[in-house]
Amino acid sequence: MASSDPIAELTGLLKRLPGIGEKTAQRLALYLVTADAPYARSLGEAIRTLHDRVRPCDRCGNLATEPSCAICADARREHATVCVVGTVADLRAIERTGGYRGVYHVLGGLLSPLDGIGPSEIRADSLLRRTAEAAASGEPVREVILATPPTVEGEATALYLAQALKSSGARVTRIAQGIPHGGEIEYADAVTLGRALDSRKEVS
Amino acid sequence: MASSDPIAELTGLLKRLPGIGEKTAQRLALYLVTADAPYARSLGEAIRTLHDRVRPCDRCGNLATEPSCAICADARREHATVCVVGTVADLRAIERTGGYRGVYHVLGGLLSPLDGIGPSEIRADSLLRRTAEAAASGEPVREVILATPPTVEGEATALYLAQALKSSGARVTRIAQGIPHGGEIEYADAVTLGRALDSRKEVS
Repeated sequence: MASSDPIAELTGLLKRLPGIGEKTAQRLALYLVTADAPYARSLGEAIRTLHDRVRPCDRCGNLATEPSCAICADARREHATVCVVGTVADLRAIERTGGYRGVYHVLGGLLSPLDGIGPSEIRADSLLRRTAEAAASGEPVREVILATPPTVEGEATALYLAQALKSSGARVTRIAQGIPHGGEIEYADAVTLGRALDSRKEVS
Repeated sequence: MASSDPIAELTGLLKRLPGIGEKTAQRLALYLVTADAPYARSLGEAIRTLHDRVRPCDRCGNLATEPSCAICADARREHATVCVVGTVADLRAIERTGGYRGVYHVLGGLLSPLDGIGPSEIRADSLLRRTAEAAASGEPVREVILATPPTVEGEATALYLAQALKSSGARVTRIAQGIPHGGEIEYADAVTLGRALDSRKEVS
C-alpha cells in the first residue's frame, strides 16, 4: 500500500500544511475521496494552478493576478502613503480594518540575523528604490508607516528601515503599541503596559 | 477582488473541507501561494486526479486502485471471515490494530430511517449476495463480524444484517462493548457499564 496508494500519498502531502497533523491529513484525504468528484477536481485544479495565476505585485509584493496588484492599480488609494508589512497575511489583516486608504510594501520577511536573514533577503532595497523613484518622479512618498510586528525581528526591521529612510524625505512612523482592545490591565505584560503608558495621549 | 481572486476562490473551496473554517482556509490558501510551487502543484495534482485513481473495490467497497483492493487481493488473508464496517475510515482503524487477518465489507453508511437511508442505500444487498455466492462456490463465509459502531444507527444496522444473514449458514458475531482501555469506571455512562457487566468473562 506504500507509495502506490493514492490516499497515503495525498495524506503525506496534506500533512506538510501548517496545523495539519497525520490524523487530520488522513481524515481530509478520506473525505476528499468520498466527496463528490467535481469538488475534488476543482479544489485540486485551484491548488495546482495557484502559482501560475498568482504572482507578487511588481511594485509592492502583494499577491496579484496582473503585474500590478488590485491595491497598487487603484487610483483612489493614496499612493503617497506606504504601509510596510512583513507578510501578505499582515496586509490582509490591515485591509480588513477598512480604515487604511494608502498603499503597501510587503517585505516578505523580517530581519533575523541569527537565521541569516539580512536586508537583502527581504524586500528592503526595493522599498528604498521605490521611495527614491517616487521622489524623482515628482510624486514623493510623504509617509512610510512601519507596520512590522512588535517582536524582536519586527522591531529590528522597523529600526533598520527607519534609519535607511532618513534621507528619503518621507515622514517615517511606527504603528502604536499598547493594551489590546478588550484587554485587562491586570494581565498585560510589563513591556506592553510600559509602552502603553509611554504612548499615552491627551484626552480631549 | 471577488471571483477573479484565486486566493478567495481557493479559500472558498478549502472551507468546504470538514473541520476547516474561514480563517484556517485563508491561512492555508496564503500558505500554499507562498509555499514552493512544485509542492503546491503536486498537492493540487494529487487531489485533482484522486477520483480517477481511486475507486471502490468491486467486492468489499474498500478504496482500491485496481478492481480488487489490496486486502481482497491478498491470498494470505482469511477470506472466510468478513468484518462488516460502516466506512473506509472504520476499516482503516481496524487495520491499524494489526490483529485482524480476515477481509472486510464496507457498507458506505448505516441504516437511518429518519434520514431516508434504508438497506438499499447502503451496501447491504451486496453483502448478502457475497455470502450466497461464496456458499455456492464451495468456499463459504464462516463468520461475519458486525463491526458497526454501538450507536442507534450502528445497532439498527447490525440487527438488520444479523436477521438477513440468518439463513446464510455463517456465524454472525458483534464486536464487544465495554469500558474503553484506560477508561474510569466512575465516569463510564450507564449503558456502557451495563453492557460491560453483561459481557463479563471468566478470569482464567
